[in-house]
Amino acid sequence: MRILPRDATRSRSHTGLDAEPSLPILDRPAGVLWVDDDPQFTARARTLAEQSLLHLHVARTPDEASEIVAIYGSEIVAGFLNIDLLGEPSTEAWLTETRAHPKARRIPLAFLSARDDLRTRVWAAHEGARLFLNTPVDPTELSQAINQLVALRRAARPSILIVDEDRDFAGALSDQLNAYGMQSVALDDASQLLTQLQCSDPDAVIVDAQTPDINGFDLCRVLRTHSRWQDLPVLIMGRDNRLGARLAAFEAGSDDFLPRHSAPAEFLVRIQTHIERSRMMRERADRDPLTGLLTRRALLESLAARLSEVSRKKQNLAFCLLDLDHFKRINDTHGHLAGDRVLAGLGRLLQNRFRVEDLRGRWGGEEFVVVMANEGMHNARTILERIRREFAELDFQAVNGENFRVSFSAGIAEFPTHGRDVEAIFSTADRHLYAAKAAGRNRIIRTPQIN
Amino acid sequence: MRILPRDATRSRSHTGLDAEPSLPILDRPAGVLWVDDDPQFTARARTLAEQSLLHLHVARTPDEASEIVAIYGSEIVAGFLNIDLLGEPSTEAWLTETRAHPKARRIPLAFLSARDDLRTRVWAAHEGARLFLNTPVDPTELSQAINQLVALRRAARPSILIVDEDRDFAGALSDQLNAYGMQSVALDDASQLLTQLQCSDPDAVIVDAQTPDINGFDLCRVLRTHSRWQDLPVLIMGRDNRLGARLAAFEAGSDDFLPRHSAPAEFLVRIQTHIERSRMMRERADRDPLTGLLTRRALLESLAARLSEVSRKKQNLAFCLLDLDHFKRINDTHGHLAGDRVLAGLGRLLQNRFRVEDLRGRWGGEEFVVVMANEGMHNARTILERIRREFAELDFQAVNGENFRVSFSAGIAEFPTHGRDVEAIFSTADRHLYAAKAAGRNRIIRTPQIN
Repeated sequence: MRILPRDATRSRSHTGLDAEPSLPILDRPAGVLWVDDDPQFTARARTLAEQSLLHLHVARTPDEASEIVAIYGSEIVAGFLNIDLLGEPSTEAWLTETRAHPKARRIPLAFLSARDDLRTRVWAAHEGARLFLNTPVDPTELSQAINQLVALRRAARPSILIVDEDRDFAGALSDQLNAYGMQSVALDDASQLLTQLQCSDPDAVIVDAQTPDINGFDLCRVLRTHSRWQDLPVLIMGRDNRLGARLAAFEAGSDDFLPRHSAPAEFLVRIQTHIERSRMMRERADRDPLTGLLTRRALLESLAARLSEVSRKKQNLAFCLLDLDHFKRINDTHGHLAGDRVLAGLGRLLQNRFRVEDLRGRWGGEEFVVVMANEGMHNARTILERIRREFAELDFQAVNGENFRVSFSAGIAEFPTHGRDVEAIFSTADRHLYAAKAAGRNRIIRTPQIN
Repeated sequence: MRILPRDATRSRSHTGLDAEPSLPILDRPAGVLWVDDDPQFTARARTLAEQSLLHLHVARTPDEASEIVAIYGSEIVAGFLNIDLLGEPSTEAWLTETRAHPKARRIPLAFLSARDDLRTRVWAAHEGARLFLNTPVDPTELSQAINQLVALRRAARPSILIVDEDRDFAGALSDQLNAYGMQSVALDDASQLLTQLQCSDPDAVIVDAQTPDINGFDLCRVLRTHSRWQDLPVLIMGRDNRLGARLAAFEAGSDDFLPRHSAPAEFLVRIQTHIERSRMMRERADRDPLTGLLTRRALLESLAARLSEVSRKKQNLAFCLLDLDHFKRINDTHGHLAGDRVLAGLGRLLQNRFRVEDLRGRWGGEEFVVVMANEGMHNARTILERIRREFAELDFQAVNGENFRVSFSAGIAEFPTHGRDVEAIFSTADRHLYAAKAAGRNRIIRTPQIN
């Protein structure tokens, strides 16, 4: 077997590998551009944006919008344009002007309009709208739209695994995908597919139909029965492009089939579409809308895979359970909106302060989980201690305008010291969390005795 | 415009249109076949199955398994086979025998094994395993697997919308899809696409690239910017099969592209694969694992669409908020497992006692929502009253083996009487629910005064 690492200078785990800059961190709030003149609707959008700790930059005219882009362009992660306010010709002119601005070129945009005719929708799609929403927009739909646009901006550079025994062909395809901004790894021994998937965790796989020993159709079928990989986009490429081969590919559950001699542009566009669609679906399924972190179910699924990996590699894993202190009191004293801001704030902090490979999830209510693979309790505590101090110094705003601060307590458990399965590790972390609460809160405990 | 309803005798909303029988109702519990001899693992599986109100039929040998299939075949909705117990040749023999049994032919199966080599996995996929799980299986993974297999069995007959101005071509394609067990509607006026989607809510769309006025690429682009339809599988068919057309189709965000003169078998297999994959993802994203009902987010999304529809058609809509009575006490007295059974039981009852088009979701914790479009409060109360009585008479089992009963209270609000948006309707239903609790629980209130 040979693995051809392409573009190895940009490893997925450490540099974030995204062509896009990641979201600004808490002290420089990310912004949303809002071009509309309806005060009631704008106020509602402001509330929703603030819940996600995003700052709404409001423009009432195209000129104001251009000014905002000029000043805050690099901090703006999504835009909403009311096209009824601007009118189609001004919108087009404004878009042309704005996209000339390097900082603003890639801001994903949603168009808002009271009109619902197909012609307007076609026009919007042609102008590059990522979403088209009918006004008045329902708060749920608006909040979903904000999350979706922000996720588009956050999306990391796509990574592809190519399975092909012909190294020259795979290398050439890989180079071409890389030239288009993807990152790819080629594998010439199909029997290593599952191991390689676990290491490189790609966004999609391109597999040759005629891999030796086990053919591409069977490889695809195996992925479809594997709980971890069953939703991974798979593209089978065949030397034989006849009906039988195409049918076999789809019957095996592949997302697409291409002749092996297809133009690289075709591989590129097709795989990009599959990746974009699968990311959109996964985002919907696996992310808690308020905090942007993994849902409990998604976290448990990834954790199971992570445990089997560290177990195989004889590494450690630290499991941290966090719980906001006196959260009920915050909701009662400062209002639910303020409580939601606190949850979103801790979510954002956890999103930005860890490595891509660390799992961060909302366990439910005011409980959060952070999992660090290949870290022991001691290091985990040091890292989490910094976050604890940083979080405790953040100012949150109550509904009445007052500022207030919040802390969290945490318990840490370690694999394999405290057990080899999720239940055992969770229950130890939970006991340590309880000890942290009992000892006065706003602290982290990794063993009940020595801390 | 002309709509060609195909197979109109089986409407999606009323008959359930599934080629498969739907899940048995509560009084005839659905079964899961479990072929394994590890008592500890079997006990865990039994607990997980019971949480979903499924009955585990345990077989320790292939012969026992065959007996179970002969007796309970029509009630079994999923099977789990430990292939290490049976061995590959016996598994093959058993599968051949079992699949000859008409009641058992379509039971979706997961294979369990301690072996993780690719060869075994390929063999399992060839033998028709829908999932392959490594033992010991993590409880989360097992519970996810049970849900996934049950959902496969529950899946309704796929429905396709064909958009093509050539009625003969569309009719012929439609007939062929129907012959393969799908249900299709053909639309010859692309400008009616959005309206038609709302009426027929299909699982996928096949659109001709050259529809008049607005071409198929633009139609696809519009769907991708539409929050309601952006994850719908779209297949573009083109008269022109050159690279440019193929690229245009994928750039527009279609899931697939096919020459218009392709064999019907190819349309069939490709669209089936896209539908199966999209259903799997949607199931993951939108269903609460414990109750099988819509998650709060999925419910809110569908509710927004439902509200705009009834508003357009000047119909009513009833929004019912249900809350289990004394649920905390149940958990404390009978154990969390018993509490989970109650939640799953109410979930199953709501799943089986309403029309397909009624929305049923878990709002969070012990709160549930039922939405009936085109029903006023009066009818909604009558229907829900029957469910209330039925539920209150179900026996649940505590961890200590004791039986106990549970009731729920509910508040109902009506669109447009109590408001035109979700917030207003929810808050009225919530007030009515509060009144029901205050009046002694185990009752339904639709106006605080007269009940």
